Amino acid sequence: MRAGSERRAVVLLSGGLDSATVLAMALDAGVTVCALSFRYGQKHAHELTSARRVAARAGVTDHVIVDIDLAAFGGSALTDPDLEVPHGRAEDEMAAGIPITYVPARNTIFLSYALALAEVRGANELHIGVNAIDYSGYPDCRPAFVEAFERLANLATRAGVEGAGLQVVAPLLHLTKADIVRQGLALGVDYGLTHSCYDPADDGAACGTCDACQLRLAGFAAAGAVDPAPYRGR
Amino acid sequence: MRAGSERRAVVLLSGGLDSATVLAMALDAGVTVCALSFRYGQKHAHELTSARRVAARAGVTDHVIVDIDLAAFGGSALTDPDLEVPHGRAEDEMAAGIPITYVPARNTIFLSYALALAEVRGANELHIGVNAIDYSGYPDCRPAFVEAFERLANLATRAGVEGAGLQVVAPLLHLTKADIVRQGLALGVDYGLTHSCYDPADDGAACGTCDACQLRLAGFAAAGAVDPAPYRGR
Repeated sequence: MRAGSERRAVVLLSGGLDSATVLAMALDAGVTVCALSFRYGQKHAHELTSARRVAARAGVTDHVIVDIDLAAFGGSALTDPDLEVPHGRAEDEMAAGIPITYVPARNTIFLSYALALAEVRGANELHIGVNAIDYSGYPDCRPAFVEAFERLANLATRAGVEGAGLQVVAPLLHLTKADIVRQGLALGVDYGLTHSCYDPADDGAACGTCDACQLRLAGFAAAGAVDPAPYRGR
Repeated sequence: MRAGSERRAVVLLSGGLDSATVLAMALDAGVTVCALSFRYGQKHAHELTSARRVAARAGVTDHVIVDIDLAAFGGSALTDPDLEVPHGRAEDEMAAGIPITYVPARNTIFLSYALALAEVRGANELHIGVNAIDYSGYPDCRPAFVEAFERLANLATRAGVEGAGLQVVAPLLHLTKADIVRQGLALGVDYGLTHSCYDPADDGAACGTCDACQLRLAGFAAAGAVDPAPYRGR
């Protein structure tokens, strides 16, 4: 399917700060990229708009958007209209346990689709922007999870059984949010196009107080940079 | 979420012979069941009709049907209209390599959704009718795949991190098709409601010559039973 040492990857692109950075790193490394995004019953569609803009700005023309209905299951403040996104939590609150914004098995489902697409495209890598430091309590953002998925991927697929194997690449795993911002700025990522807020205004402006906004703003501050994304009342 | 030693499971129900048997075995063991089926761009919808009938006959009222768009990716004769289902292959042909009817990463995606639903329902088991003997060359039907998914499930979820853990139950893994048929008949499964054919007629009648039909018919013959499902020209 692929010639010699060409690297081909499916890059999970949420439209957030992390995945935009992952995409830039992959392209900088000369990887041929197919971007994959999901419409998954989010309360807002701003993420997907951001994903489209980020892909277009990066010159990625192979961008697949898949509809998946996680909202049918409920159980998360990000997909269930009956649950509220928490605001203004202190750092130790975020660190304690799995938050209500956790979407059940989300990264497992996302990586499974990436695996399917990788098989069809003949890609040998899956790139995902999970982060073990600022992971905000999600179980499926830990190194052991990434390793377990790679192991599964190589048992589950044609590439694993007949081919050269698949690799799950998580380049942000051990970076702080400040490191990620520095990395992305050095690669020319326009973070003004990205979207991280769990509870944005109708026009997409970020709230500045949910867990995701707090982590993001702290990352920019620690990197000595200003977040160019729109925030409410700013 | 659950009291004492109550067993709660998400059972993957395709409407085929194998998953109907798995469902009967779970209910016979006193497991509280949530059945999960998928509308996944199959060329035919007979599978889903069968899944509904099988669940209803078994008295399962908690039956979730999720839309997933595997056809968007292509790459399989079961979802891609440009690829043809092979007929009349000999047993050694079926055993040699991964067939064109393989849907990329299908069981990985199915189990990922089952995992999400298990988290929401507070279920501690995922039941799947994969079979390593008559597996017809699919990589994601092997024991190592099942074990790898269980490992992943326990790293990926709230239950794995904070709770009692999740188990992937694959009761058919080491049974022959004849054993499966015997098991199901003993539990009163009405196989006339089930559907296995990869290439059925418009009225749902099975072709009798695709890999799935051949394996199924050979299983009934070896069990000394007659398949009550409708076949073309029978």
